[in-house]
Amino acid sequence: MFLRNVWYVAGFSADLQPGQRLGRTFLGEPVVLFRTVGGNLGALQDRCCHRAMPLSEGHVAGESIRCCYHGLEFDTRGTCTRVPGDEPIPRLAFVRSYPIVERDHVIWIWMGAAAAADPASIPRHPWHQDPKWTWNPVYYHIDASWDLLVDNLMDLTHLAYVHAGTIGGNAEMHFRAQTQVVREGNKVKVTRHMPNSIAPRTYADAAGFTGRIDRWQEIEFEPVLVRVNTGACEAGTGAYEGSREHGFAMVVLHGVTPETDRTTHYIWSIATNAGTDRGIDQVVFEQVAATIREDQAVLEAQQRRISDTPSGKFVDLRGDVGSHHARRLLRALLEAETKPADVALE
Amino acid sequence: MFLRNVWYVAGFSADLQPGQRLGRTFLGEPVVLFRTVGGNLGALQDRCCHRAMPLSEGHVAGESIRCCYHGLEFDTRGTCTRVPGDEPIPRLAFVRSYPIVERDHVIWIWMGAAAAADPASIPRHPWHQDPKWTWNPVYYHIDASWDLLVDNLMDLTHLAYVHAGTIGGNAEMHFRAQTQVVREGNKVKVTRHMPNSIAPRTYADAAGFTGRIDRWQEIEFEPVLVRVNTGACEAGTGAYEGSREHGFAMVVLHGVTPETDRTTHYIWSIATNAGTDRGIDQVVFEQVAATIREDQAVLEAQQRRISDTPSGKFVDLRGDVGSHHARRLLRALLEAETKPADVALE
Amino acid sequence: MFLRNVWYVAGFSADLQPGQRLGRTFLGEPVVLFRTVGGNLGALQDRCCHRAMPLSEGHVAGESIRCCYHGLEFDTRGTCTRVPGDEPIPRLAFVRSYPIVERDHVIWIWMGAAAAADPASIPRHPWHQDPKWTWNPVYYHIDASWDLLVDNLMDLTHLAYVHAGTIGGNAEMHFRAQTQVVREGNKVKVTRHMPNSIAPRTYADAAGFTGRIDRWQEIEFEPVLVRVNTGACEAGTGAYEGSREHGFAMVVLHGVTPETDRTTHYIWSIATNAGTDRGIDQVVFEQVAATIREDQAVLEAQQRRISDTPSGKFVDLRGDVGSHHARRLLRALLEAETKPADVALE
Repeated sequence: MFLRNVWYVAGFSADLQPGQRLGRTFLGEPVVLFRTVGGNLGALQDRCCHRAMPLSEGHVAGESIRCCYHGLEFDTRGTCTRVPGDEPIPRLAFVRSYPIVERDHVIWIWMGAAAAADPASIPRHPWHQDPKWTWNPVYYHIDASWDLLVDNLMDLTHLAYVHAGTIGGNAEMHFRAQTQVVREGNKVKVTRHMPNSIAPRTYADAAGFTGRIDRWQEIEFEPVLVRVNTGACEAGTGAYEGSREHGFAMVVLHGVTPETDRTTHYIWSIATNAGTDRGIDQVVFEQVAATIREDQAVLEAQQRRISDTPSGKFVDLRGDVGSHHARRLLRALLEAETKPADVALE
Repeated sequence: MFLRNVWYVAGFSADLQPGQRLGRTFLGEPVVLFRTVGGNLGALQDRCCHRAMPLSEGHVAGESIRCCYHGLEFDTRGTCTRVPGDEPIPRLAFVRSYPIVERDHVIWIWMGAAAAADPASIPRHPWHQDPKWTWNPVYYHIDASWDLLVDNLMDLTHLAYVHAGTIGGNAEMHFRAQTQVVREGNKVKVTRHMPNSIAPRTYADAAGFTGRIDRWQEIEFEPVLVRVNTGACEAGTGAYEGSREHGFAMVVLHGVTPETDRTTHYIWSIATNAGTDRGIDQVVFEQVAATIREDQAVLEAQQRRISDTPSGKFVDLRGDVGSHHARRLLRALLEAETKPADVALE
Repeated sequence: MFLRNVWYVAGFSADLQPGQRLGRTFLGEPVVLFRTVGGNLGALQDRCCHRAMPLSEGHVAGESIRCCYHGLEFDTRGTCTRVPGDEPIPRLAFVRSYPIVERDHVIWIWMGAAAAADPASIPRHPWHQDPKWTWNPVYYHIDASWDLLVDNLMDLTHLAYVHAGTIGGNAEMHFRAQTQVVREGNKVKVTRHMPNSIAPRTYADAAGFTGRIDRWQEIEFEPVLVRVNTGACEAGTGAYEGSREHGFAMVVLHGVTPETDRTTHYIWSIATNAGTDRGIDQVVFEQVAATIREDQAVLEAQQRRISDTPSGKFVDLRGDVGSHHARRLLRALLEAETKPADVALE
């Protein structure tokens, strides 16, 4: 069971130039994303209504996408605009369309009831628009269920073990960090502060720290993405009071979009204020990308074990408080979505 | 559900020299085809009755096939003729045999009730015997259901899209062609005539046409194969009145034999009267083989989509009239085959 | 359904040096085998109780194994000894452990009720301890059900066909061998004697036979392994009266351990008294290893056919008497194991 009435990250704007198309399965449903010659986005069921040919095997033709088998064309609303050799167009010749919106260089798709799709509810990500920041979009295909990825991101105590060779650092420091978990509406926020820490080498390289630093890790979940804001300022210069512009920061947007119940589109970006001097932002991008490959290996090993021991149980630990809140929130939303309306009235 | 009481193309005569054997699954049942040293054909269940070893892993021994595990031997009727070290031969030691007949250099197999197998009902294909024609046998394994292949062959309007780079030619011409569909007994015939057309380059190369031509495409379905006769004569020289010997023609026999419900043995031959001068027949063979690889890609993409959206619907278009008739015919035959006899008497 | 209350071969002692771990699935259950730094063996469910991470992806840490995801540690009894950042350790944090014992350089595991695991019932294999013998351990992964392997080993009439190019020899000789099958408690013994035979080349090479020999093949099944003792003495020198030390012998221990219902851990060793002169024991090891690869090909072809024709039947022949007894014994043990205790009382 997937949450449907929510905006999912479908890709980045740059993935679809005018005239391009892309086949991706979301929530078990094959979808073709395309951008018309005129620049408009479309998201249609990726199955021609005639003989089930994937439309993503075809081509964009003007404001439509054309099936490669018998040449049927469909516009961004899924209306069939042409059936070669067959006029008038048969009444049943159409395919399902999905609401699709571009915002902050991210493409968002709505897999639920179209009438409920409100673009105003799309999560914003201003770092993609801020000229003081540089950023990089990435796509990873993960052979693991999306909720394992949420768990992973909400509990950063795994850094000491999974990322010991990269960003991990000292295990004890991670476990001693001051951690706060709060739920605000449809968001779960985990805040971890490590005041007066020793700077890891990446931080020193990127920001030129020479003394102690005040570090933060701020994780924000909302269905279904996780934004992780990490960074540091020189100790005692106001990092925990909101004055951070003089420090070093990275903001990773983790789009967590189910492909099937066992595979996930992990569509993420990394933004930093480290600047482009000596290519320091590229170094940050590469280090984060390598770190996330380590997570991928863990997630896929978990999924294999879960798949072959389906009756196995899970035990929650103290570090899981963030993912525990996220799961409760998701469960409540899913129940609200699947509850029949008439039962709600009684 | 497969139609069983029908002759299916199992292969070509040349596939089995004396002493050779070949394991192939038909209608979900593994079969070993073999030719004895004396030249006789056998078709047996490809599973030794002793310990389920595929007989196709063994070898032809005289007039029998010998299992490679414990040496049991079976003749072309499936009778066990030898159990090394075990005399007399146990009463239950036999395997199922299937009727198998060679005709016109094609090997035909009957997967239904043996008593109903009448060799006189085998479709003939005289082009394989005619010295004025040359021909070439080919085997493609298709990861798609057999009925998608029948659809493909019965609606040639796909030429303009799938084969745009090979034999496709002008789309509008295909859609404007004069098309007739008739059902005659267990056959469905689709006839498309394109009088006074411009000769495609292949045709000009093969037959030396310099002016306008009268083209034909004649498609003949019978369970379960499709014969496609295409060609042209100089315009106004009698092509549509039956005088075609002076023109250029190709006859493709498409044997459509289900392997499983999602995979198909596509056993086909191409015959032409183009002659062997300058290897022109070889050019025709190669072009058709490349064209059919384009169809294979389409069929396999369709099957993947159908498999992952099993509740999806199909919409028929004008071009589907031929395949619509073929499906109705197949459905009627299948119903007749599966109807209990006593119900038929009431 | 697997027999559970029995000792299975899990590996060889040399497979696990101190600090090493090994993930293997037994009877469909993933298990991590490990040897602590102090030299103790552990066998635990290969799934961390926290988030299902395979423990075999982690590392041995002292007397425990540590999960690679969040650093939980478990000792050889499955008790959680550490949860980084989480004190006290949650009551539900433990994983299942399995009895595991090392004997005669073989590691044995008990997948059934731990209370019933009696190390005294472990089959002994003194050839691994005898200084007059040399031996070699091998692991093959087989894509076939374990019972097909038992069948294979209990009926050596297949030598004439499967191993015609290696150890097979003359077919008629195998079928004419004097064969005795007896059941003794939980063992089935098949004895085949070939007195006054011609020495196969391997035998002549290994033992320097120049004249006729008295050969033996003695197969001993107990749940679930097969010990095959083969060899020869010069004819008339007492081989069948128990005087064999002057002859040539090979003892193969075939550990037959189900991985899943369609795959098997084939963990075997070959021991010989041929001596190490001119590397003759190595030649014997290599020849047997090549022979068993031939069996593997047969078993996997059988399994493929059985899987795709699940309703197929089997016919027993005279040579199956040994495996027939083994199957009856296994069936009786399985029934005893699965019968509810209270039903037994009525």
